[in-house]
Amino acid sequence: MKTHKTKPTFTPGQHIQWIGNDHTGYLRLLDQTCLPHESAYIDCKSVQQVWDAIKMLAIRGAPAIGIAAAYACVIGAQSHSDPAAGLQHAITHLQTCRPTAVNLFYALNRMAECAKYTTPDVPLLDTLYNEAVQIHQEDIISCNKIATHGLKLLQQLTNNNLKLLTHCNAGSLATGGIGTATAPMYEAHKQGVPLTVYADETRPLLQGARLTAWELLEAGINVTLITDSMAAKLMNDGAIKAVITGSDRIVANGDVANKIGTYSLAINAKYHNIPFVVAAPTTTFDTTITHGSQIPIEERDPKEVTTIRGKQIAPDNVQTASFAFDVTPAKLITAIITEKGVIQPINATTIHSHLTNI
Amino acid sequence: MKTHKTKPTFTPGQHIQWIGNDHTGYLRLLDQTCLPHESAYIDCKSVQQVWDAIKMLAIRGAPAIGIAAAYACVIGAQSHSDPAAGLQHAITHLQTCRPTAVNLFYALNRMAECAKYTTPDVPLLDTLYNEAVQIHQEDIISCNKIATHGLKLLQQLTNNNLKLLTHCNAGSLATGGIGTATAPMYEAHKQGVPLTVYADETRPLLQGARLTAWELLEAGINVTLITDSMAAKLMNDGAIKAVITGSDRIVANGDVANKIGTYSLAINAKYHNIPFVVAAPTTTFDTTITHGSQIPIEERDPKEVTTIRGKQIAPDNVQTASFAFDVTPAKLITAIITEKGVIQPINATTIHSHLTNI
Repeated sequence: MKTHKTKPTFTPGQHIQWIGNDHTGYLRLLDQTCLPHESAYIDCKSVQQVWDAIKMLAIRGAPAIGIAAAYACVIGAQSHSDPAAGLQHAITHLQTCRPTAVNLFYALNRMAECAKYTTPDVPLLDTLYNEAVQIHQEDIISCNKIATHGLKLLQQLTNNNLKLLTHCNAGSLATGGIGTATAPMYEAHKQGVPLTVYADETRPLLQGARLTAWELLEAGINVTLITDSMAAKLMNDGAIKAVITGSDRIVANGDVANKIGTYSLAINAKYHNIPFVVAAPTTTFDTTITHGSQIPIEERDPKEVTTIRGKQIAPDNVQTASFAFDVTPAKLITAIITEKGVIQPINATTIHSHLTNI
Repeated sequence: MKTHKTKPTFTPGQHIQWIGNDHTGYLRLLDQTCLPHESAYIDCKSVQQVWDAIKMLAIRGAPAIGIAAAYACVIGAQSHSDPAAGLQHAITHLQTCRPTAVNLFYALNRMAECAKYTTPDVPLLDTLYNEAVQIHQEDIISCNKIATHGLKLLQQLTNNNLKLLTHCNAGSLATGGIGTATAPMYEAHKQGVPLTVYADETRPLLQGARLTAWELLEAGINVTLITDSMAAKLMNDGAIKAVITGSDRIVANGDVANKIGTYSLAINAKYHNIPFVVAAPTTTFDTTITHGSQIPIEERDPKEVTTIRGKQIAPDNVQTASFAFDVTPAKLITAIITEKGVIQPINATTIHSHLTNI
């Protein structure tokens, strides 16, 4: 079911809602493909509906995908005569929807794991529902902690000159809370700290133009939209003092997978001696992989390159490359901010130590 | 007057035609804003029509703008009771249409200069017409010479592994001939030399997707369209062995103004140790300016960032930056190819020597 209204206004948390107070409810997702022009909600009452919503990017952003997948596990168990089998089917199917962001796999693993600890007092469906809510709540808290750590770090790195560039949407819409890369921006705004944000439009799917520019504008933050290719000039002009992005997967050596274009920005930042910072919850780390080159990179439909919002912009039948992500090597990254604090410098030792410290 | 047909096919030289065999003719321009979906021609019988065509990018590309402006001077003189006054009005007006590409000013200077040498045997209108045709023909020849010099250089630089990336359109459509950056590609294709081209789509106005991909595809050249942000990943993957672009103005020290995004590519190429080459006729040089920071950079309508092919892609009223060009410093440029040969290394001395050598 889809409901529509025009002129959406941004309401934090609206994009991932569990409708109901227990495992019998369902998942309501804001269809982000319609933003910023239209509010449309998708009510998901089957695993396949969540799978489709993730695949088509109605819900996107590594942490948000994890949360949606967790709730989809509840739906899978709830809608099967054997809830345990329903859970297993859901997990197996959801693993196939997007390959790069590791938060999806993190959430599915937690759902599988928690299912082992059901008791007669807390049956499986309750256990699953509680775990999904817990994953959702933890992400909200992570965002808030990233806000505090991130703002302090960015103020240091920029000498209190918060002229920031971000890429894609690592905002509220990508998480359960106030975003990862955007968290320090919302915190600065709340504290009345002067702030300028440049948002890369982020071709092909324009998450920067459609989502980041929109949610920051709605929050009253000073945001300027640029094409992806404009960042280097603005760095050279002195208009940008730090770059901050989110991540879809951070591996053991600190290499970071993120939206296509992130790698180019990191190279440009290094050339201009501008700090390049990544903000992500620890759920985005995947230490089973030692090097960024091993991260699976999703390739998407060529139509996402040859058309924009339904308009064809290229000749018929032209070949394309359509990588959704790239990998930025640790050596180009100044610092990584998590809910636990700041990792700096970035290497296998500092990452291991950060993740294992309690 | 505009005439339309669908499914355009590429015919070299079709985009700038003088209709008629003497100064009484008019200028027919292919409206490049409609490509690759539609062929539409604009018949220009007034200076203002040419001014509008340049401003709205119906005709674009530094050399092509120069040619169109030269013909516009003929129209200006032809349509005024006092041809000399008409010429002067045309020159003064055309100087205001686009600030960055120097070929416009080069062509207008030549038209002003030639007017000084009218004789009773060769009256002003004939002199102007002959000069415009001469500028047009010289550009065609320049492109052919750039093809030869460029192919040889690129084969050396890539060790005969012609996997090239280009940005924007420095193709046939940007010149009177076979383009600047594309000239070595057409030459390789003619000679049967294996060739792979990646074309950046080139936001905001998508000249790479709409024009470069189209004309290379029409020529049967192996071209792959990518978003601007994808280039760095492909460089890292080893898919690109050299970058070649055109230029809108090259100044005395070798700094190069070109379409926004060129600077970022040059930084990315340097980081990956990939040659970055610029192809331009000597008419693109402006040695009255010593440093790239002095080149005027055109800023265009914010709508070019917030809409794509008429579709709005960003929230209402979002601020934008809309620079049409950036400046790549000489130190990031491996070589410049002109009709006279190759400049390498790039500095004020080698440029001066190249331009003054006969």
